[in-house]
Amino acid sequence: MENFEFVSPTHFVFGHDAEAQVGTKLAERGATRVLLHYGGKSAQESGLLDRIRESLAQAGVAVVELGGVRPNPEITLVREGVRLCKEHQVDWVLAVGGGSVVDSAKAIAVGAPADVDVWHFYETKEQTDDILPIAVVLTIPAAGSEASKNAVVSNDELGMKTGYANNAQRPKLAFLNPELTFTLPPFQTAAGLTDMFCHLLERFFDDVGAVPVTDNLNLSLMKTIRAEAPRVLADPENYDARANIMWTGMLCHQGLAGVGRHEDWATHGLEHELSAFDTSITHGAGLAVLFPAWMEFVCDANPARFAFYGREVFGLVPTGDVQADALSAIDETRAFFASLGMPVTLTELGLTEETLEEAIDFMLPTLRINKGEPFGSFKPLTMEDAAAIYRMAL
Amino acid sequence: MENFEFVSPTHFVFGHDAEAQVGTKLAERGATRVLLHYGGKSAQESGLLDRIRESLAQAGVAVVELGGVRPNPEITLVREGVRLCKEHQVDWVLAVGGGSVVDSAKAIAVGAPADVDVWHFYETKEQTDDILPIAVVLTIPAAGSEASKNAVVSNDELGMKTGYANNAQRPKLAFLNPELTFTLPPFQTAAGLTDMFCHLLERFFDDVGAVPVTDNLNLSLMKTIRAEAPRVLADPENYDARANIMWTGMLCHQGLAGVGRHEDWATHGLEHELSAFDTSITHGAGLAVLFPAWMEFVCDANPARFAFYGREVFGLVPTGDVQADALSAIDETRAFFASLGMPVTLTELGLTEETLEEAIDFMLPTLRINKGEPFGSFKPLTMEDAAAIYRMAL
Repeated sequence: MENFEFVSPTHFVFGHDAEAQVGTKLAERGATRVLLHYGGKSAQESGLLDRIRESLAQAGVAVVELGGVRPNPEITLVREGVRLCKEHQVDWVLAVGGGSVVDSAKAIAVGAPADVDVWHFYETKEQTDDILPIAVVLTIPAAGSEASKNAVVSNDELGMKTGYANNAQRPKLAFLNPELTFTLPPFQTAAGLTDMFCHLLERFFDDVGAVPVTDNLNLSLMKTIRAEAPRVLADPENYDARANIMWTGMLCHQGLAGVGRHEDWATHGLEHELSAFDTSITHGAGLAVLFPAWMEFVCDANPARFAFYGREVFGLVPTGDVQADALSAIDETRAFFASLGMPVTLTELGLTEETLEEAIDFMLPTLRINKGEPFGSFKPLTMEDAAAIYRMAL
Repeated sequence: MENFEFVSPTHFVFGHDAEAQVGTKLAERGATRVLLHYGGKSAQESGLLDRIRESLAQAGVAVVELGGVRPNPEITLVREGVRLCKEHQVDWVLAVGGGSVVDSAKAIAVGAPADVDVWHFYETKEQTDDILPIAVVLTIPAAGSEASKNAVVSNDELGMKTGYANNAQRPKLAFLNPELTFTLPPFQTAAGLTDMFCHLLERFFDDVGAVPVTDNLNLSLMKTIRAEAPRVLADPENYDARANIMWTGMLCHQGLAGVGRHEDWATHGLEHELSAFDTSITHGAGLAVLFPAWMEFVCDANPARFAFYGREVFGLVPTGDVQADALSAIDETRAFFASLGMPVTLTELGLTEETLEEAIDFMLPTLRINKGEPFGSFKPLTMEDAAAIYRMAL
């Protein structure tokens, strides 16, 4: 078990009508003027934004609004948020939406008190504690950004998509009402389930030996996703299934599922390049395609770990051949993603042998995660390895 | 899944030499003068206190000291701590020890800023946010007080032992170095393992249906204790076993293992009376005796829940007879506690048929948990039920 530090200060309000407490909880914590940050039309049309405006007004909290966050949130809108926060002396940022909105809000909260442009932090990873407090009303369980220390922002001008990690940008308040997720379309629900499952895989497969307390907790979340995913897809308004998935999504990326381990994160790096190459690819769908390919490529480094995973998560009975058990676990993973309606090949995402080579030429030079150095810890990958994994995923 | 709020703001520093960071971490957070609070001789003789004094001195943090915390910490010493904090304008309380020291530190931190005597909060359960920040260097994994919202304090004058729960008294910093637990005697190690296991049982058995995310997480911790307990008892200086147990002990009582459930806590109530009647009884040992008896008494309310627990934690194969499976799970629980070297009958704790009746006459009128009302949620217990459970435990 490796040394670690861990902190997760988010105060969660979970359950029916959680968002009705937005105003009082923010006012209790001294908020006087919030930036209400959101995405497209759904939060407006559902009446959610109006309920939140009402809750804030009743608590005497003033509001500045900034909508229009897109998937893969972009730095230009973040800068506009920073400008609004400075101009109006905003003291909290309130995100209403999914991971993209929360990540955009995190970037605004980092940029608002700073003397330098916010991209500086994404470029240099410089740590700061001077960050506006963030609250979240979550509408899409997937990214886990409602409690995580991470945010990912795109910079179209530079053709980059990069992350910033800082414990001080973990949201201080998160309102999680499972009913807000009843209307999520099946594909988005499934992509979210895939993303959260992959947050666990990235933490489970690394170069550290067994860490039973962390591994068992991680596996318990995988099992929960496996059991609840079919329920939530078959019955989208099943409150309990939605509630279990919403809370699981938070736990998958808040950090406990990886403490004491090195973690890997190579596949997330490969996927960020893929969805930067073709922005129509949803992150969860890209992961569903790439993770089984990565697993097959790296499996030899520690097949027993894959066999253990297969036994615990998919109930596979050991055959006595660890290599075969490991491959069965990978097959089960691919089948699980397929059962959710996810693509499991790049072909299904529209790539061909020719366009894949173009994609690889585009992706490898910008594989930001490592600047050309081997990356990942279960089995460190070279650029050639990365190309091989993309080809295996076709 | 019931509505809930949850927050666990503790910043953990975990691993080898964690306590060497006490001074810098406290100074970073603005501490200028701490109350260094501890128990008996072991922290002094091991050199731990000297290392902590050195770390604080190097960071320029002034120290006021108060040792002498006893098991079942008492309000008189708490009041002395409050007086010292007021007199010396202490701004942090630093506990070095196990659950008793941390609980005493929590009570001091509550009392120090208050205009009323600290017992007021234990008596009325009145909530306050005006609490000194608390840091912990943990030496005994058991109570989970290093991250929990709870503290239990005795008042010898009133013949009472009672708890106070407040999220604002959760420690802000916790230093967990598994090496500090290498010298714990086997009985104390085993009593700690029992206490943490019972913190999970109290959360698992209640009147709420399945909450898969919480239940699976809870069960994963039970399995970790079951697997690591023999390792740590056979090989007390096994760093990884001690590390897994130390982190598990925190997770068992920090709250995640019960969110969305009502929880029960009847058995803890019964045990607090027992160890108040005979103060030589260790809390973990009292729980090892009373929990299986409670299980047998309440099992009929939902035998399927016990059968599920037996399957998951002890690997019991279902027989088709849920009642029989439930009883097997209870037998396994008792056998597990016995395997740790814990007593499993009141007889082993020195009670006889006659002295037990005296004990019951002493305990029932003061069963503080409920003031005579039925208590617990899996199956609400009357005073007669409580007496029956004590008698079953003989």
